[in-house]
Amino acid sequence: MNFCPHCAAPVVQRVPAGDDRPRHVCEACGTIHYSNPKVVAGCLPVWQDRVLLCRRAIAPRHGLWTLPAGFMENGETTQAAAERETREEAMARVAVGDLYCYLNIPRISQVYVIFHARLLDLDFAPGAESLEVALFGEHEVPWDRIAFPAIEITLRHYFADRVTGVFPTRVLDVERRAGA
Amino acid sequence: MNFCPHCAAPVVQRVPAGDDRPRHVCEACGTIHYSNPKVVAGCLPVWQDRVLLCRRAIAPRHGLWTLPAGFMENGETTQAAAERETREEAMARVAVGDLYCYLNIPRISQVYVIFHARLLDLDFAPGAESLEVALFGEHEVPWDRIAFPAIEITLRHYFADRVTGVFPTRVLDVERRAGA
Repeated sequence: MNFCPHCAAPVVQRVPAGDDRPRHVCEACGTIHYSNPKVVAGCLPVWQDRVLLCRRAIAPRHGLWTLPAGFMENGETTQAAAERETREEAMARVAVGDLYCYLNIPRISQVYVIFHARLLDLDFAPGAESLEVALFGEHEVPWDRIAFPAIEITLRHYFADRVTGVFPTRVLDVERRAGA
Repeated sequence: MNFCPHCAAPVVQRVPAGDDRPRHVCEACGTIHYSNPKVVAGCLPVWQDRVLLCRRAIAPRHGLWTLPAGFMENGETTQAAAERETREEAMARVAVGDLYCYLNIPRISQVYVIFHARLLDLDFAPGAESLEVALFGEHEVPWDRIAFPAIEITLRHYFADRVTGVFPTRVLDVERRAGA
């Protein structure tokens, strides 16, 4: 941020009175501009013993596989965001269920919120942001070509939990991936 | 937003190509400025059979009671944010535990994420944003003077769940409060 979105004056970075961290502050109109983490809402669509993955047609991680997920929008619930992203990326209809994984990624100031989901039919196809959409059993998942650590962690927990049939809500911190 | 934070040119509201909702767009430098929901991180600090509440010294809802909670900052985990808010608002030390309530508030584009917490000692006091900090048993809680619906819902679930001793993670949508 270089200029104040309210009055167009240049902003400075300083710690406002009563605060303890630097913010973008407009010295002209006095507005303090905050920046906060974003929520990435997604789901884990399941059909029988397989999960739905999308191969990304956009940066970052073009060509790699991921669960349907994307930035939550103003005015919607997290579950509505997950359902919308699934429709947009996989042209698929899901019944969104319980919260499964809540993943902090402080390095990039994001939180991934991933819900269980039941795929309602097999009428799916790549949306504008996907190259391919497909169902994968545990041993078919392209584990070395998953786009994001948060998604790989979610999928690994899912297949491990499936052995017991118990899927506790998991709160996890995602660290930098080796080599990433 | 009136002006582009990157180049100071006026922004317009329009639906960018490939998008489906209006954004603030700078026609001069081409930047699309997104606005997304914010995460309010908090906790429910417990000491024996009582919960810690803070009476707000700031707007909105000045003078009403709430759990320690506030906007998550960039670069921190949600639990770290909850712990920090508890230190700031109640000058209290807590061990943050499991995720308890995840509350969508689409009307104001916020998500409240409230964790269980164990108060570590009784050395608490009002921080700069609080008028009072105190412990309340279920029948002492000032139910008609709770600052926010999300907090009242969390507290009511807590005392109900305490009867069974089972505290499932709850995902809830918060609607407008009657009369609010």
